Amino acid sequence: MGSTGDRIAIDAMGGDLAPQEIVAGALRARDELGVTVQLVGEPDAIRPHLGSRASDSGIEIIPAEGAIAMGEEPLTALRKKPKSSIAVAMDQVKQGRADAVFSAGHSGAAMAAALLRLGRIPGVDRPAIGAVFPTLTGTPVLVLDVGANVDCRPKFLEQFAVMGSIYSEHVLGIDNPRVGLLNIGEEDCKGNDLALRTYPLLKADDRINFTGNVEGRDVLSGDVDVVVCDGFVGNIVLKFAEGVGNIVLQILKQELPRGINGKVGALMLTPNLKRVRQRMDHAEHGGALLLGVNGPCIIGHGSSEAASVFSAIRLAREAAHSQVTDRIRSQYRKKQAEPIVTEN
Amino acid sequence: MGSTGDRIAIDAMGGDLAPQEIVAGALRARDELGVTVQLVGEPDAIRPHLGSRASDSGIEIIPAEGAIAMGEEPLTALRKKPKSSIAVAMDQVKQGRADAVFSAGHSGAAMAAALLRLGRIPGVDRPAIGAVFPTLTGTPVLVLDVGANVDCRPKFLEQFAVMGSIYSEHVLGIDNPRVGLLNIGEEDCKGNDLALRTYPLLKADDRINFTGNVEGRDVLSGDVDVVVCDGFVGNIVLKFAEGVGNIVLQILKQELPRGINGKVGALMLTPNLKRVRQRMDHAEHGGALLLGVNGPCIIGHGSSEAASVFSAIRLAREAAHSQVTDRIRSQYRKKQAEPIVTEN
Repeated sequence: MGSTGDRIAIDAMGGDLAPQEIVAGALRARDELGVTVQLVGEPDAIRPHLGSRASDSGIEIIPAEGAIAMGEEPLTALRKKPKSSIAVAMDQVKQGRADAVFSAGHSGAAMAAALLRLGRIPGVDRPAIGAVFPTLTGTPVLVLDVGANVDCRPKFLEQFAVMGSIYSEHVLGIDNPRVGLLNIGEEDCKGNDLALRTYPLLKADDRINFTGNVEGRDVLSGDVDVVVCDGFVGNIVLKFAEGVGNIVLQILKQELPRGINGKVGALMLTPNLKRVRQRMDHAEHGGALLLGVNGPCIIGHGSSEAASVFSAIRLAREAAHSQVTDRIRSQYRKKQAEPIVTEN
Repeated sequence: MGSTGDRIAIDAMGGDLAPQEIVAGALRARDELGVTVQLVGEPDAIRPHLGSRASDSGIEIIPAEGAIAMGEEPLTALRKKPKSSIAVAMDQVKQGRADAVFSAGHSGAAMAAALLRLGRIPGVDRPAIGAVFPTLTGTPVLVLDVGANVDCRPKFLEQFAVMGSIYSEHVLGIDNPRVGLLNIGEEDCKGNDLALRTYPLLKADDRINFTGNVEGRDVLSGDVDVVVCDGFVGNIVLKFAEGVGNIVLQILKQELPRGINGKVGALMLTPNLKRVRQRMDHAEHGGALLLGVNGPCIIGHGSSEAASVFSAIRLAREAAHSQVTDRIRSQYRKKQAEPIVTEN
């Protein structure tokens, strides 16, 4: 599989604003990144959004039948709709016709399709979803898992740490990334049962640069590059961050224009406030990477607009270019050759 | 115990800025709220901060010996220092000499002292810490547990829901408070093992107004009044909120004064930005209530300044006035009389 990152299979039918915003984001990616976008879905639904560009080079329509709706149970739906857009998009990667895949549709279905069609990397028990957050210092922090695995065992978290380190180093460009275990205190005696049993595994694993426990307030401090947690905690933190962002923007909207000075000042600050909003906005990040399956899969927010789709496709290209999948695979081949001895 | 809420036992030695800021907050509470403040600690350390007010009415010094340091193991430390400030402060409530207690010291030690000296309310397996957050709609939301119990069973969460509802109704003044279970999806089939097993208990409990699952982004939406979760998740969310607050303030500081317009505009907005900071600041809230022990206990942030101490004492007075402890006790007496039948 020559991972050039040039061909991205895109689930054109997945997401609240599909296919319109998905196609718009894909066209922008085609133009600005030079990637070939493979729009997977019902041709009659996609074509109107392409307009005169339908026959441009670098734009392909890959026919699929139907999409999986938000309420559907993933495995049942995939069985009933083997030619749904997400299933066909995964097949593009599996068959070596695409280098990465992106979907903003039903995230459970995307994960299930990735597991069924691409399969797990040998040695990885549970693939994990990694989400990138901005930090106080400006370097991004990767949090995983943010929702693929709600009940975890210590060795799953250890695998998240290994895969997250590879992502952080090779996609985010961070040298020797520092890994923290999300916990309620810094001391190694703190935590719930899972955290207490995970700590010694992380400490003993020489494939990662484990720096100890991190508390909730440290996630965005920039003190660590990878934060490991189970998918229940990670998903709540991810969505809570969204909620906090909204409340802060609302407070700004209510408080800044108070009084005459406030109204004039807020007007003068309009462009700067826009930048504040952008920095707080998740659209810049676009998507989360599903780590541990045989191919780069980017899962987007259901409400993705063109800008998010563009960012997600850029991430898909970077994940393919940096050969994250191959690097994880070889890390686990090594692991099988030289077993790790647990210290604690 | 005539719960008038007039006498508050204050751990004068607990907290990073003790005794100075603790005493300053207590004096303000004495003046503005009319409470009697019982400053528990070493008289020689407290007296210099009282100045000429040492003999004022409504200000008492209750002698204690030593304090429990942040690194100490709570139970061991309490055994070694039976006359430490936190232990003596709890005894004030136990002996009926105070109506509520406040400490900004070692929170594990405060919890342990409350359990040992005051004891659990019969029927409550695990006391929980409830923290109040602002919401989009302006009404406060109570999240519990935020750190007392890291590994929970479904019935603990059910008890948190009952105690939280009483707190929300009688201290925060919310009529028929809506209770949500913190989870990774709204559907009742979503969640980790704990959430899945807790859902039917909450649904069947007619002492609470359970409205279903809430996701991380809904915690601050104002759609529910009480959010129930285990203490591991709750503690991470609480501290993550602090972290997000810091990063937002930093982004504002960096982005708003950019350019000439930015500098002038930011200057004109100075008072309004101060209000933004205040609304985002936890100091307004002051402390978290430990629910389920025989007496109102408020646990403050270790870095509490006078303003937080004042808010915490006000909360202590409200908790005592509204007879939260008695109401929880009577709820559990009722519960024993008429057992709940689980529907699911």
